[in-house]
Amino acid sequence: MLTEKFDPENLALMSMTIGVHALVRRTHEERVLAALRAHGALSRGDLAARVGLSRTTLSEITAQLLQRGAIVVADTDASTRAGSGRPAERLALDPGSGQYLGVDFGHRRVNIVVADASHEVIAQGVARYADGTAWPDRINQAFDRIDRLSEETGVHFGALQAVGIGVPGPYTAEHSARPAVNWKGRIAPEGVEAAFAARFAAPVMVDNNTRLAALAEAIARPDAVDNLLYLRLADGVGGGLVVSGRLATGSRGFAGELGHVTADPTGTTCRCGKRGCLETIASAPAIMRACREAGVQIESLDDLEAAVAKGDPHIDAVLRDVGSTIGRVLGAAAMVLNPREVVIAGEIVHVAPALVEAAAAALRFELYSIPSDQPQIVRAAQLRDDGGALGAIAAIFHQSPLLAGYPDAESAEPAPQHRRSAR
Amino acid sequence: MLTEKFDPENLALMSMTIGVHALVRRTHEERVLAALRAHGALSRGDLAARVGLSRTTLSEITAQLLQRGAIVVADTDASTRAGSGRPAERLALDPGSGQYLGVDFGHRRVNIVVADASHEVIAQGVARYADGTAWPDRINQAFDRIDRLSEETGVHFGALQAVGIGVPGPYTAEHSARPAVNWKGRIAPEGVEAAFAARFAAPVMVDNNTRLAALAEAIARPDAVDNLLYLRLADGVGGGLVVSGRLATGSRGFAGELGHVTADPTGTTCRCGKRGCLETIASAPAIMRACREAGVQIESLDDLEAAVAKGDPHIDAVLRDVGSTIGRVLGAAAMVLNPREVVIAGEIVHVAPALVEAAAAALRFELYSIPSDQPQIVRAAQLRDDGGALGAIAAIFHQSPLLAGYPDAESAEPAPQHRRSAR
Repeated sequence: MLTEKFDPENLALMSMTIGVHALVRRTHEERVLAALRAHGALSRGDLAARVGLSRTTLSEITAQLLQRGAIVVADTDASTRAGSGRPAERLALDPGSGQYLGVDFGHRRVNIVVADASHEVIAQGVARYADGTAWPDRINQAFDRIDRLSEETGVHFGALQAVGIGVPGPYTAEHSARPAVNWKGRIAPEGVEAAFAARFAAPVMVDNNTRLAALAEAIARPDAVDNLLYLRLADGVGGGLVVSGRLATGSRGFAGELGHVTADPTGTTCRCGKRGCLETIASAPAIMRACREAGVQIESLDDLEAAVAKGDPHIDAVLRDVGSTIGRVLGAAAMVLNPREVVIAGEIVHVAPALVEAAAAALRFELYSIPSDQPQIVRAAQLRDDGGALGAIAAIFHQSPLLAGYPDAESAEPAPQHRRSAR
Repeated sequence: MLTEKFDPENLALMSMTIGVHALVRRTHEERVLAALRAHGALSRGDLAARVGLSRTTLSEITAQLLQRGAIVVADTDASTRAGSGRPAERLALDPGSGQYLGVDFGHRRVNIVVADASHEVIAQGVARYADGTAWPDRINQAFDRIDRLSEETGVHFGALQAVGIGVPGPYTAEHSARPAVNWKGRIAPEGVEAAFAARFAAPVMVDNNTRLAALAEAIARPDAVDNLLYLRLADGVGGGLVVSGRLATGSRGFAGELGHVTADPTGTTCRCGKRGCLETIASAPAIMRACREAGVQIESLDDLEAAVAKGDPHIDAVLRDVGSTIGRVLGAAAMVLNPREVVIAGEIVHVAPALVEAAAAALRFELYSIPSDQPQIVRAAQLRDDGGALGAIAAIFHQSPLLAGYPDAESAEPAPQHRRSAR
């Protein structure tokens, strides 16, 4: 039942044998299962509200699904509950009824996360490779790591529902059907989608990994963030947007390219060919270079962490300068997008809190004229390295082709690129 | 049939009387009608693809709907058809089966547009009032104009499906339920939603009018633009975003506030309290002031038009300067959003083409590193004054509560604010 696609075209045939009442019940069941598939564990109250059924009808439906083992009682909402009263049970899909694989290819490592149908992460692993490793080798290393992960943890892929994959660089579904984008020398992930589809015989969705990390941040907390602006500072500077609860791709897959917004028109030349892009100022190597220019010998994040711990005022000044520039660029973007939260990610953020503070101050000033009940909208990322892989799983939960047969594909006007990519 | 909401909760009761086959057919019919409601006229081929039915099933369904008069043959695709072969008929909802009212309240006028169920505009009108007119008066003037429009054109509201309303200033659905936002002295449209709901006994949707004008631009052409950045230069400077085919509101209704992005940190003080906001440079009054500072006496758009026609080099320099600044601000936003098109609207744009040219050049430079097969992404708006009213109608077509009963409300993750506002 769970993996079977609801297809109104087949209703005529089905209904002959199962009868009208079963058909009605099936419609209700599908809606309940779809809600749990998209959102993970929910209380009966939340579920009733989300699927638009009365509490009474919903209770009948969930009782039948529980009896058949299609869903289970996952836990109670005691830990997140604000008021008093008896904690409500939260229902979830039977964890064994499906697995979801998230894979995040970085420049130097691949992160792998496996979740079950109740949205619980059941296995995680990493494989490292040299920068510049060719894609066929990266893919094979990922396959090997997934095999070992399966052996180590006993997780099997007997009911693998879908694979979500994050890759560096711009990516839209239309590019998977034609020569991959090779943006200013970035390695393009040719064939990654086809390779995973062939290996796992499951639908594969590919997207930019920073964008997927943005999605993971947006849903990492109990109250998911509908509008989020995400910046990642690493060897390069990238970003991602969640707009109205959806990951934005832009018209050509470049949405979120905060690294190449001009921050200083008279600045140094960027690898993209312009001058003074944010990346020339705020990438981890650029920050470390600025520290050296300020007279402190910083060659690694460990050096930087030590200098910050020591309270070196030269380092503090550099970090605050960079943070202010970041805040101005984020501020202009936030003025346009009105996000609920702005997240700055990357290992360097956790080493250099002054950078986040200065960015928050600059952004607060830029947004001075926008009334807000959120005093602090800039925060460092909660998730670290596995954000992209978790985001890839989130993307397949939310955009599973299992949902594509519903009339929503028509009436809800989904983003065409994304919808197409979830096949 | 058309105005009746499809409610799976009622299926059990309905199915007892109408039987299984009728139930299946009804499901198919609802999907076809929903597609025509959202998209206007479509060929059978487009319709089959959109609703996911086979051509054979689709033909049976449309034949029945045509026979009952629920839909009509609107026209053929001869005018837009690229290939040879027989033109395909395009089907649409029976035009008489519903009316949709779009109302755009500006600072000095209200624009009114009425469309029928086949998406054709069947009546249009304007009423003017003094700047600063109180909302109850504006609303009554709109009611009077709508009544006269009905008399003049014979358009009746016997089957009014919904009312879409554009208002100046930020607006989200949540604000309609609490004290309206009063942003830095802008007049808040208290009660406009309630007044129209009471007067017309139809669902009312309210949103910011610049945002609705952005939506109208996005869908004004045969191939609707999924990602669009929209800037309007008037007494103030506002904007709107279409992201992944949807109008973005942001977390608090402020998405698109391009007018208050800092364009010059050392610039003049803005009414919002910051310095050098784009509005202090690119609003129509600011541009005319800059012309006067350049020694040319410009007091109105007519003066400006005359100076441009004369080829005054001082004026040209001012317009190009302002255009470059606009292009830089739009460029930063476009780097983040990767829109397919950037539209600059406002009467002044049509008077001062040099401004759009300079903005396009600055934006092209900022986006230098993004590969694009669209050589020119900046253009002046196609629609003029009635954009907001047309956008309000587009918004109700796409977000009609008639569609809200479908499972898509769950699985497609619509923007919560918007979904809630279409009630």
